[in-house]
Amino acid sequence: MWTLEQIAQNVKGKVLGDGAWEVNSVATLKSAKSHQVSFLANSKYTKHLESTNAGAVLVTQKMAEAVTGNAIVVEDSYIAYALVARLLNPEPENYAGIAATAVVNPNAKIPEDACIDANVVIGNNVSLGRGAFIGAGTVIQDGVIIGNNARINPNVTICHDVIIGDDVIIHPGVVIGADGFGIANNKGKWLKIPQLGTVEIGHDVEIGANTTIDRGALENTVIGNGVKIDNQVQIGHNDIIGDNTAIAGCVGIAGSTEVGENCIIGGGVGISGHIKIADGVMMTGMTMVTKSISEPGSYSSGIPAETTNQWHKNVVRYRQLAKLTERVKKLERPS
Amino acid sequence: MWTLEQIAQNVKGKVLGDGAWEVNSVATLKSAKSHQVSFLANSKYTKHLESTNAGAVLVTQKMAEAVTGNAIVVEDSYIAYALVARLLNPEPENYAGIAATAVVNPNAKIPEDACIDANVVIGNNVSLGRGAFIGAGTVIQDGVIIGNNARINPNVTICHDVIIGDDVIIHPGVVIGADGFGIANNKGKWLKIPQLGTVEIGHDVEIGANTTIDRGALENTVIGNGVKIDNQVQIGHNDIIGDNTAIAGCVGIAGSTEVGENCIIGGGVGISGHIKIADGVMMTGMTMVTKSISEPGSYSSGIPAETTNQWHKNVVRYRQLAKLTERVKKLERPS
Amino acid sequence: MWTLEQIAQNVKGKVLGDGAWEVNSVATLKSAKSHQVSFLANSKYTKHLESTNAGAVLVTQKMAEAVTGNAIVVEDSYIAYALVARLLNPEPENYAGIAATAVVNPNAKIPEDACIDANVVIGNNVSLGRGAFIGAGTVIQDGVIIGNNARINPNVTICHDVIIGDDVIIHPGVVIGADGFGIANNKGKWLKIPQLGTVEIGHDVEIGANTTIDRGALENTVIGNGVKIDNQVQIGHNDIIGDNTAIAGCVGIAGSTEVGENCIIGGGVGISGHIKIADGVMMTGMTMVTKSISEPGSYSSGIPAETTNQWHKNVVRYRQLAKLTERVKKLERPS
Repeated sequence: MWTLEQIAQNVKGKVLGDGAWEVNSVATLKSAKSHQVSFLANSKYTKHLESTNAGAVLVTQKMAEAVTGNAIVVEDSYIAYALVARLLNPEPENYAGIAATAVVNPNAKIPEDACIDANVVIGNNVSLGRGAFIGAGTVIQDGVIIGNNARINPNVTICHDVIIGDDVIIHPGVVIGADGFGIANNKGKWLKIPQLGTVEIGHDVEIGANTTIDRGALENTVIGNGVKIDNQVQIGHNDIIGDNTAIAGCVGIAGSTEVGENCIIGGGVGISGHIKIADGVMMTGMTMVTKSISEPGSYSSGIPAETTNQWHKNVVRYRQLAKLTERVKKLERPS
Repeated sequence: MWTLEQIAQNVKGKVLGDGAWEVNSVATLKSAKSHQVSFLANSKYTKHLESTNAGAVLVTQKMAEAVTGNAIVVEDSYIAYALVARLLNPEPENYAGIAATAVVNPNAKIPEDACIDANVVIGNNVSLGRGAFIGAGTVIQDGVIIGNNARINPNVTICHDVIIGDDVIIHPGVVIGADGFGIANNKGKWLKIPQLGTVEIGHDVEIGANTTIDRGALENTVIGNGVKIDNQVQIGHNDIIGDNTAIAGCVGIAGSTEVGENCIIGGGVGISGHIKIADGVMMTGMTMVTKSISEPGSYSSGIPAETTNQWHKNVVRYRQLAKLTERVKKLERPS
Repeated sequence: MWTLEQIAQNVKGKVLGDGAWEVNSVATLKSAKSHQVSFLANSKYTKHLESTNAGAVLVTQKMAEAVTGNAIVVEDSYIAYALVARLLNPEPENYAGIAATAVVNPNAKIPEDACIDANVVIGNNVSLGRGAFIGAGTVIQDGVIIGNNARINPNVTICHDVIIGDDVIIHPGVVIGADGFGIANNKGKWLKIPQLGTVEIGHDVEIGANTTIDRGALENTVIGNGVKIDNQVQIGHNDIIGDNTAIAGCVGIAGSTEVGENCIIGGGVGISGHIKIADGVMMTGMTMVTKSISEPGSYSSGIPAETTNQWHKNVVRYRQLAKLTERVKKLERPS
């Protein structure tokens, strides 16, 4: 149990109410009980402030008065919530050791405090940093280097010679360093181009389930520090993703594209190959990006859903735009 | 072998022709041989009725006359086909037992009739229902509860504490219960928000290959009874999918969205987070859904393919719509 | 080390300069050192010709004069580069044998020169051709037949009775032969339709990481010879993909569609089910294909990104196209 005072100290907040009140977990305003901390980060949920049974609510100064019970006033209530959630739910300690069923090459460098789970396969000259957790069934091929505190979940595949920094989290089913899609058309048949580069991943990167990041053709594919990638994302060979960029689910980025720092790429976005996206670009969901973007700001494309009936009509009108333009021209210059 | 009479009884149909005729499998009208049952469910294939060598054809009353050989008249010929196909192709019996190479935590509850295949990893306090089949290389983490008659194929990952009902089929490469994409921007760096909920999956659910379903942030992600999900679908944290909704391949649903019951979501559809889709909504392929939909019915978006040449012209005209509107306005109010 | 003369012979080229000069690897013009071969395939990089330190540059006759050092003049410099890259970077020899931790059914036919890596699971009546490499954690179910020289990477799942030709490369996380998405709506509940076909894959096929190819419902799903498939592609049941067609990442093809030979399908394209695409069709990225295409050529759809501001305005104008058309009609026929 933690007192509200202790919680407040951890988030640089101020308790309004009973600082000695004890809590041990986090919950939504609607479901929180008296031993739980909740938070108000979205004004849409303000109505729940009155009825919540939370032991305390994390709020900004502006909303503090609306809290009927204990409050902890903070600068940013969502960040504070994230910090409290982490404080009250620490990662479980690794059970150090190598499972009997793991297959670890004798030349691999495995620190004593690493946890290598059942059926893991680790190749020649692999090097793991301290505190590594490698989940069941994960395969790490020859020559891979991984930094400290890696948390690599089950059934991941990391191909040969991939380089990964500290503090990464890799979710199940991820594939890093498979061959890029390099083919050349030789009189009708496709000739495979050897993919001789690798993948370099920075520190503090999280990669979502079943995401794939291809190795480079000649140079490397590079994922910067602090990059966060959701599930089912495809990152092509020789892409470069700048520091602290966040990529939502189902995004596809074709090869040799450079994405800047601090970008936010919405779900289902598609980005063409061989282009450059500036720092600080935001793309809304399903945007189709075919050309370089040189200015920061928010970009979009796609026409949102309407009834299928209306959609049919609008598609027809779209296809008649040329004719409509002609008709307007004729009106402007009557014969 | 089954007689046509026996088949007819199983689908509440009526034999026209030789009820004692024997068949043992199903096939298309075009390829069926005399020991096979075929069906006509799509009028596009009516032309094959005359030439088919099928031992019998499942048809509705309306089409019965067009069948030259044996027919079994049924209410719905596609449903009848499905039933006959299941009857003639029963699931293989499980070979009960735990493979020598499976790694099963002694605290896991595994029924005697379960089949645990090679290299499966099952964690602490996992509970499997009777008749479970767990395919090779699948990893089931601590605390997972799975109901009766589960068929979980190879190389699946089910993360800790996920709850799954009876009669589910999970295809290879699926990941259930990986962390949702919860991050908060703390002065330019992304702070991970612990994903403390889990995933609850109902009865009679099928989940396609390489699909991912994330665990909830605070509350749970919920998949209702009878939900059918195709391959490569991404379901975000805290999504709620209503009973008997079907989701085709490559769909992405961002977090905290509620999809109603009996919806049909076409391939490649993208649905934004924090919205609500009513019961009985149908979305055609690649529809982009950015707002809640409160009425049942069919919804669409996207402009279908045209030649690249024409596409270029139409995109230009689309971008000139503002100017075109101005020109019309000027014609309406000549200066 | 190879002399430039030797290299030239292998690509049917002609050395300009020192034919005895020795090289051992390939690199980009920008990074190449004197023991490396580079190439100029994209005129965008011509500027690097002057400053490159490459030991030789592969170029076409037209560009030969611009090379300041050694050149190898070839017909197609990108193809020549591919050939030289393969020559200088041969696939590592298989370490023949079956890992102690592999689980191989005694009825499987495994040639002596095959390499079966750790934790591989191979079922009853599987047949592998000579030179097969099967990566760690891969599961090959009963009855699968694979031709010569297969390179199947880790954590792949190949379901029962799939048939695969010679010289295939399958990347990690691929699932071949999972059940197609066959369901019939029986008074509100979905009835599973048994998927009784399999998948047939031709010779010289490459399949990217986490791609899924479903088995057929009654007939087979068919992937032709020389087909190249990138990552995260979904190919539905009973699709037929013609020889030498290339499919980029994140493409989804619904069931029962036939794609011709020598097609090029861009990233993120979606193709409806039950349609037919002619030979020689090219689709640009994210194109939405809802109808059959009977003529070769390039096809496109989708409106590329613009600023979110501008996008909002254009979507509104799009939705007002009906009104605009009415206004033009009124101007044409004033009352």
